[in-house]
Amino acid sequence: MIRIVACGKIKDAWLQKGIDEYVKRIQPYEKIEVVEVADEKTSQNNSEAEDLQVLVKEGERLLKKIKPDEYVILLDLWGKQMDSVSFAKTIDSLHTQGKSKITFVIGGSLGVSEGLIARSNMRLCLSKNTFTHQMCRLLVVEQIYRAFRILNNEPYHK
Amino acid sequence: MIRIVACGKIKDAWLQKGIDEYVKRIQPYEKIEVVEVADEKTSQNNSEAEDLQVLVKEGERLLKKIKPDEYVILLDLWGKQMDSVSFAKTIDSLHTQGKSKITFVIGGSLGVSEGLIARSNMRLCLSKNTFTHQMCRLLVVEQIYRAFRILNNEPYHK
Repeated sequence: MIRIVACGKIKDAWLQKGIDEYVKRIQPYEKIEVVEVADEKTSQNNSEAEDLQVLVKEGERLLKKIKPDEYVILLDLWGKQMDSVSFAKTIDSLHTQGKSKITFVIGGSLGVSEGLIARSNMRLCLSKNTFTHQMCRLLVVEQIYRAFRILNNEPYHK
Repeated sequence: MIRIVACGKIKDAWLQKGIDEYVKRIQPYEKIEVVEVADEKTSQNNSEAEDLQVLVKEGERLLKKIKPDEYVILLDLWGKQMDSVSFAKTIDSLHTQGKSKITFVIGGSLGVSEGLIARSNMRLCLSKNTFTHQMCRLLVVEQIYRAFRILNNEPYHK
């Protein structure tokens, strides 16, 4: 079972369509669920303390959606980078170890809270470049789909 | 002037919409043009020699679209990684140096040819993970848009 726990609604219809498309493609390989929690209103004029409050609140909302038996991979700019084959092998190895519930967590526009970092079992960096956390969701589902294609020796165009 | 020279048509309507959206957002900052060349038919049963032929052919087609005075940034899994701020500074620094024509080149499904590598002025890696070359186009235009927002001190949500 794979879960994506993410903060905020996807605002662009094209992006939602892309995410839905990959979620549909993943389903024949593994059950997948996307859980969205509400984001906090932020403003460019926010003080650092206000930003921190948003970060913590969103973090707590995300944490509430994670069950104790889940293996948590947190998307994090300061996480580990791996190529797609290593990523696929990681998923496979988790399954072999009996960790059948893998949950990918994507923070909000301000990033990830200390609480989320503490709960995570692995921190993964998909790119040194910053992308919107909304686009991050697309990148994650594409990589998960790619992982299953790789693990099943099925062709998938680059 | 920014040009994106890429191989193959975008097959997913949602992805084309996303790319169009960012191209539109870039336009107030700089003129941008997307040039597509046809891709070669490939097959999973291709021999290595046949794959190489495809790679070279597609590379030549892309090369033909690049003018001599263009500064070429080649998207390449083995290129340099930089964060979004460094990327923005690179664009800015090229402009300061009078390199006003920047062309991003995205190869086809088999990657980039030696000819393209030889012509490139910089090789850029957006992620150690492999994404489809089609999705790569979306990532590039998003990063270019983000770069202009950063350079103009304008807010842009993560």
